[in-house]
Amino acid sequence: MAGSTFGHLFSVSNFGESHGPAIGCVIDGCPPGMALTEADIQHDLDRRRPGTSRHVTQRNEPDAVEILSGVYEGRTTGAPIALLIRNTDQRSKDYGNILQTFRPGHADYTYWHKYGIRDPRGGGRSSARLTAPMVAAGAVAKKWLKEHHGVSFRACMTQLGELPIAFEGWEHVSQNPFFAPNASQIEALEAYMDDLRKQGDSCGARLYVEATGMPVGLGEPLFDKLDADIAFAMMGINAVKGVEIGAGFGCVTQKGSEHGDGLTPEGFMSNHAGGVLGGISTGQDLRVSIAIKPTSSIRTPRPSIDLEGNPATVETFGRHDPCVGIRATPIAEAMLALVVIDHVLRHRAQCGDVSVSTPKIAAQRPSE
Amino acid sequence: MAGSTFGHLFSVSNFGESHGPAIGCVIDGCPPGMALTEADIQHDLDRRRPGTSRHVTQRNEPDAVEILSGVYEGRTTGAPIALLIRNTDQRSKDYGNILQTFRPGHADYTYWHKYGIRDPRGGGRSSARLTAPMVAAGAVAKKWLKEHHGVSFRACMTQLGELPIAFEGWEHVSQNPFFAPNASQIEALEAYMDDLRKQGDSCGARLYVEATGMPVGLGEPLFDKLDADIAFAMMGINAVKGVEIGAGFGCVTQKGSEHGDGLTPEGFMSNHAGGVLGGISTGQDLRVSIAIKPTSSIRTPRPSIDLEGNPATVETFGRHDPCVGIRATPIAEAMLALVVIDHVLRHRAQCGDVSVSTPKIAAQRPSE
Amino acid sequence: MAGSTFGHLFSVSNFGESHGPAIGCVIDGCPPGMALTEADIQHDLDRRRPGTSRHVTQRNEPDAVEILSGVYEGRTTGAPIALLIRNTDQRSKDYGNILQTFRPGHADYTYWHKYGIRDPRGGGRSSARLTAPMVAAGAVAKKWLKEHHGVSFRACMTQLGELPIAFEGWEHVSQNPFFAPNASQIEALEAYMDDLRKQGDSCGARLYVEATGMPVGLGEPLFDKLDADIAFAMMGINAVKGVEIGAGFGCVTQKGSEHGDGLTPEGFMSNHAGGVLGGISTGQDLRVSIAIKPTSSIRTPRPSIDLEGNPATVETFGRHDPCVGIRATPIAEAMLALVVIDHVLRHRAQCGDVSVSTPKIAAQRPSE
Amino acid sequence: MAGSTFGHLFSVSNFGESHGPAIGCVIDGCPPGMALTEADIQHDLDRRRPGTSRHVTQRNEPDAVEILSGVYEGRTTGAPIALLIRNTDQRSKDYGNILQTFRPGHADYTYWHKYGIRDPRGGGRSSARLTAPMVAAGAVAKKWLKEHHGVSFRACMTQLGELPIAFEGWEHVSQNPFFAPNASQIEALEAYMDDLRKQGDSCGARLYVEATGMPVGLGEPLFDKLDADIAFAMMGINAVKGVEIGAGFGCVTQKGSEHGDGLTPEGFMSNHAGGVLGGISTGQDLRVSIAIKPTSSIRTPRPSIDLEGNPATVETFGRHDPCVGIRATPIAEAMLALVVIDHVLRHRAQCGDVSVSTPKIAAQRPSE
Repeated sequence: MAGSTFGHLFSVSNFGESHGPAIGCVIDGCPPGMALTEADIQHDLDRRRPGTSRHVTQRNEPDAVEILSGVYEGRTTGAPIALLIRNTDQRSKDYGNILQTFRPGHADYTYWHKYGIRDPRGGGRSSARLTAPMVAAGAVAKKWLKEHHGVSFRACMTQLGELPIAFEGWEHVSQNPFFAPNASQIEALEAYMDDLRKQGDSCGARLYVEATGMPVGLGEPLFDKLDADIAFAMMGINAVKGVEIGAGFGCVTQKGSEHGDGLTPEGFMSNHAGGVLGGISTGQDLRVSIAIKPTSSIRTPRPSIDLEGNPATVETFGRHDPCVGIRATPIAEAMLALVVIDHVLRHRAQCGDVSVSTPKIAAQRPSE
Repeated sequence: MAGSTFGHLFSVSNFGESHGPAIGCVIDGCPPGMALTEADIQHDLDRRRPGTSRHVTQRNEPDAVEILSGVYEGRTTGAPIALLIRNTDQRSKDYGNILQTFRPGHADYTYWHKYGIRDPRGGGRSSARLTAPMVAAGAVAKKWLKEHHGVSFRACMTQLGELPIAFEGWEHVSQNPFFAPNASQIEALEAYMDDLRKQGDSCGARLYVEATGMPVGLGEPLFDKLDADIAFAMMGINAVKGVEIGAGFGCVTQKGSEHGDGLTPEGFMSNHAGGVLGGISTGQDLRVSIAIKPTSSIRTPRPSIDLEGNPATVETFGRHDPCVGIRATPIAEAMLALVVIDHVLRHRAQCGDVSVSTPKIAAQRPSE
Repeated sequence: MAGSTFGHLFSVSNFGESHGPAIGCVIDGCPPGMALTEADIQHDLDRRRPGTSRHVTQRNEPDAVEILSGVYEGRTTGAPIALLIRNTDQRSKDYGNILQTFRPGHADYTYWHKYGIRDPRGGGRSSARLTAPMVAAGAVAKKWLKEHHGVSFRACMTQLGELPIAFEGWEHVSQNPFFAPNASQIEALEAYMDDLRKQGDSCGARLYVEATGMPVGLGEPLFDKLDADIAFAMMGINAVKGVEIGAGFGCVTQKGSEHGDGLTPEGFMSNHAGGVLGGISTGQDLRVSIAIKPTSSIRTPRPSIDLEGNPATVETFGRHDPCVGIRATPIAEAMLALVVIDHVLRHRAQCGDVSVSTPKIAAQRPSE
Repeated sequence: MAGSTFGHLFSVSNFGESHGPAIGCVIDGCPPGMALTEADIQHDLDRRRPGTSRHVTQRNEPDAVEILSGVYEGRTTGAPIALLIRNTDQRSKDYGNILQTFRPGHADYTYWHKYGIRDPRGGGRSSARLTAPMVAAGAVAKKWLKEHHGVSFRACMTQLGELPIAFEGWEHVSQNPFFAPNASQIEALEAYMDDLRKQGDSCGARLYVEATGMPVGLGEPLFDKLDADIAFAMMGINAVKGVEIGAGFGCVTQKGSEHGDGLTPEGFMSNHAGGVLGGISTGQDLRVSIAIKPTSSIRTPRPSIDLEGNPATVETFGRHDPCVGIRATPIAEAMLALVVIDHVLRHRAQCGDVSVSTPKIAAQRPSE
C-alpha cells in the first residue's frame, strides 16, 4: 500500500536507496519449475547499467545480482525469489550542496513535504537506480513468458529531444548507445548529446515498446484493463509524463471508420488499437509509446528556494544522465513484461489456462 | 482481482450490464460523519446522462440513484455505501444482429475470446454505461475532498475530432452540450457533429481535467505514484488511448532548463510537472489530458468476420454516441477525484493527517 | 481495506444494515460459464432464514435474492454477480431504548468509539443479518466447487450450551431446528432452549464444519495458509471466539508420534491435521470447529453505562436469537466454501490447474 | 497473493529458506521519523534464536540482522525497510534421507503435491526458521506502537504437553528456557522435556499472548475484524492448530448474562471478550491463546510412503525442536504486534487519528 510492490499475482517488492548499501526486490508468485540462474537476469541488467557510454551517468556499478532464495538446484520452487544488488560506487559527498535547496523539477521537494525527512543520497528512493531491481524481475518474467507462451518484448528510442528517429529495423537497437532502431542517425544523436552536455542541460525522449506473440484474452474488463495497467506501469517509471496505446493521441483526429481495425479471416487489417480492445488483449502486438521528461539535475543555474523558503540558485553537479530516456529502454520492456505476466496469472485464475490460438496479426511498426 | 473494484482505501466495486436490470457500486472506506443524500450524487449523474442533446445517444435513462446502505439520518456511518441505478430503457432487440459478428474496434471480439460467453446487451459489461456508478462514487469523493481539504475538480473538451477548442473560460463549460470552455466555437462544433451523424461515422476527442486546491505530499514514491494511479484511472475509462500529465508528450522536446518548474518564495513559476514530482503531489494543480478514440459502433459498413471466422460486413444500428468523448468529461472528473481521495487516505495511514499548507501556485490553464 | 470485501480472486463485497432498505453483495471473479439461477442460491438462504422455529428470532424475512448482474441466459459471464436482498420486516422502533446505553458484550460500544456515529437499526452493520449475503455468495461457490472439483461442504452443531451433542449421522442435521447430527437428543435440546428463553438469557454453541472431496495442494505456504484463511473466515463470523483445525487444542497433549497422521499406500491413517499440513491441503477432509459466544442482547438486566459514562442498567427487548450458534451452521459452510474457492483460483494462477488425483482418505467424523 | 506478504498498510514481505544463503523481509509502510537501529531488532531475535538451551534445536545461528534500506541517519524515512539475516549453520546433508519419503505430519507431503519440486534444505520454505524475519519486523512494529500509543506485547507458555503451567507472574517469563510465567514448575518442565528427548518424541504446547495499553476502535467491522486478523496471524505460525480470543471455547458453556462484560463508569468489570467486540478493540487488553502441535520431525519410527507411493518407515534425525511451542512465544508477540500496527494505520486512514482516551480496564490474567 506504501507503493513499493508492483503486481498482484506475480508481485515484486522493491527496496533500497541509490546510495545505501544495497537495492533489490522480492518476487512472490513466480510459477515453480522454471530453470533460472543469475546469468538469465544479468543480461538485461547490463543493458540498463550506468557508465556504458559517455552519454549516460559515469557512476560505475557492476549491478551484479545475487539470488538469495526461491531457486533450488537451478529451478524456481514457487517460493519468493529475493534478488540482491549491492551498491558499490556511492558518493554521498557529491550531494552535500543539494541538501539545503530544492532542484526545480526534482522529487526532493515533494519527499521533504511528504515525509519530513530528507535522504540526499543520490535522490535516495526517488533515484532511477531503483529501476534496476525491476529490470531484474522483468528478466524473470520475460523468460517465463517466452518459454510458456512465446511472448517477446522489445523497445527502442523514437525521438531524442528535438530529433525524431526514423525506424529502420530492430537489428540496429543493440548497436548504438541510444537504443535507436536506426544506423544512419547515430552521429547526429551523438553530436546532439555532446552539445547538450557542454551546455550543462538535459533533454527529453520518446520511447516505443512492444510485446509480440501475445495471447488473446488477457486483461480485466473494467478497471484493471490491460492498457490501464500498462499506463500505470509506464507512468511509474521515473520521469515519464505521457503514455499512448496504439494510435494514442493520434486517435483524436481519426474517424471511427478509420480507427477501428478491420478483420479478415487472416487476421486484423491494422493495429490502431495497439493490441487491446475493451481492456483485453486481441492477440495483436501490444504497442506502447512513452514520453520521458528531461533530467532535473542539471548544471545550468535555476531559481529555487531553500528549506526555509528563501530564494536560492541551484546548480547540480555530481553524476547524472543528461537524458534519462536513454537507459529507460530496457526498463520499459521489463515493466511491460511484468504487466503481461501478472495478467496471464490472473487470467489462469478466473478462466483457466491461456488460449494458445493467437489470431493472425497485421504487419506493423513503431512509425505506423 | 477480476477488475471491478477501483481504489484501495476508498474502494468502489462496480457491477451491472448496460441492458441488465440495474447497475451500481459499493463504496467501502468512506470516512464516517459526512452529510450525504441522493441529491448530492444526482447532479453529476445528470451531467453524464444520455439523451440530453442530439449529439449523444438517444437512449432515455433517468439514472436515478438509490442509496441502499452506509448512510443513517443523512450522514455516512463508515459502513459500505451501496448505490443502485435501475436500467429503464434497455432495447436488447437492437443488438440481435450484432451477436454473430465482431464490430471492428469493439470489445465484443476480446470478451468472446476471454470468457467464451457473449452478452450482447448493449455491449454488456464493456458499455460506457458502467461509468455511471463511477460518476456517482466520484460525487461522494468530490464532496468529501471539498469539505475536508478544499480540493475541486473540473474538466473540459479541448479538441473534437479535427477541431481544436480554444480555452476561453471555465464558465462556458456548462453552457453547451460539448463541455467546451468556449462560447464562440459552439456552432462549428454542432455543424461538425451533424455532418458526422449524416455520414454514419464517429470521431475522437481530447479532454483536459484538473484538480485545484491540492494538498502537497499525496502519492507513493515508487509504483503507486499519484500520476501512475491517474494514468491507470484514465486509461480505465472506455475508449481512452492516451494520457498526459502536465507537459505530457510536449516534454520530449523541452530542455531540462525549461521543463523544471522554478521556485520562488511565492510559489512555483510554472506547472510543466502537472502538479506531480517523483509521483507525489506538489500542491500545484493536477493537470491531465486524455485522448478518446472514436466510437466503434458506427453505421458505416466495415470488413469483419463472424463467429466461425468467415468474412462479414458489419454495420451497427441501435443508439450510440457518435463521440463518446462528449459525455466523458464528468467521468474524467470523477475518476480523478477517486484517485485523489484514495491517496489522501493512504497518506493519512502512513504519515498522519494531510498537510494544510498548500504552496502557492503559478497561474495556469489548459492551453498552457 | 475497510473490511467489507472477503476473498482475493473470488471476492465478495458485502453491503447493508440489518434495518436498512436492503442487504446484498457483489461477487467479482466467478469463473464464466456456470449455470446459475436464483433458486440455486435460495436453498441455503432458507436454511439460514430467521423465524423458522421458536428457538430463533421471530423476525419474518423471506430473504428472497435477486441476481442483478453477471448472469446472462442462465450462465455466469465472468462479470460481477450482484445479489440483492430487500429487508421487509424492519422494526427500528424496538431499538429506541438501546440508543442511549451500551449492551454488555455488544458491538454498539466499539462502533460508537470507532465511528462516532450510532446506527441503532438492529445493530446496523454489526448484525448477524449481514451473514445472509455471505450464505448467498457461498452457495455460488459451493455450486462451482461441486461441479468442477467434487468438493462438498457440511456442518452441524456439536454442543449447545452445557449439552454436548453426540454424532449419530449427517442425515439427522436437516431434520431438527438445531442442525444437530442426532435424533435422540432433540427433546433435551428443545427443553434447554425453552428454559433459557424463560430466564431471558442466552447460551453459546460449538459447531463442526467440514469439506469433503478436497483436492491436494491448496493453500499458500507462509501467511495465506489454507488454515489461516479458514481461521480468518470463521473468526469473521459474528460471535465466534475460537477456531480449531483438526485436533485443535487437543494437540497440546498429543505426542508427535500420535499426532502425525501416518501414511500407507491406501492413504492417511488418521486426520489429526484436519486436512492441512504446512498450510496446504492434503486432500483429506477439512475439519474445523468453532466456538460461538452467547447472544449479548438478552432480557436479563445487566450493569452498563450510558453515552455520558453514567451507570445504567440495560435490558434488551426486540427480537433476538437466544443462541446465534443455531443459525450459524449454514454460515460456517458458506465461509469455508468461500475460502476453498479462493484458494482453488489462487492455485490455478501460480501452479496451473488443480490436481485431480485426490489421495485416499481415512474415515473420520466430528467426534474423532 | 502467493502468501509471502503479511499486512496491508504495514506490510511485511518474507523471503528465504531454512538452509539457503539468507532469510529476510521487506517492510513497506512504516511511518517515517522513528529512531531505529539493528540493536532495536536484535533483542527479540535473540529471544527466538535456536541453540539457547538443551530443550531446543542445537543449530547454531547468530541471527544477526542487517538493515539494508529505509533508515537514514538512524531514522526511518518512509521507504521500505529491508532486513537481511544470513544463514550460517546449514547442514543440508542431514536431510538426505528425508528426500525420498514423507514425514507424517510434515509439510513435505503437501509441498511436493503443490509445486512438484522438493526443496529438502531443512524443510526449505516450510521451516519455522522463516519466523525469524517476522520477529524482526514485529520488533519494528512494537517499537512504534510503544512510542506512539503506549501499546505493549507479552506472551508466555501456559501448558507444555500434559503439564499445565500456573500463572505466577510475568517477571518469571524471561528467567527460564520455557517462557513459563512461573518459577516453581521449571524443574518439572525440564524433566518432562528430558524424558521426551530420550523417547525420541515431541510434544505440543499452549501459549497465551496479550497486548496491553490498547486504543479503542481498532478493527474493521465485517471481515477484517481485529480478532479475525489475529486468528489469521496466529494460525499462520507454523504448527498452530487452534486460536482463542478471550473466553475462547469456554464461551460455549457460558450464559449471556455471564459472558457479556459489564460496564461501570470505571471501566469493564471483566474481559471475557478478550478486548474485542464486533471485531473492534474495546481498549481492554487483547487476550489470545494458541495451541501448537508436536513437532513432526521425530526419531520414533513412523509408517509412511515414499515418492512412488510404496510403504516406508520414517525416522528423522538432524537437529529439531522437540517442542516448537517453546520458541514460539516471541513469534506470537511479533505477529500480534503486526496485526495491531496494521489496524492502527487502517484506522488512521478511514477515521483520522487514533483515540487517546483508552477506557479503564478490569484486572485480568491468563488463567482468568
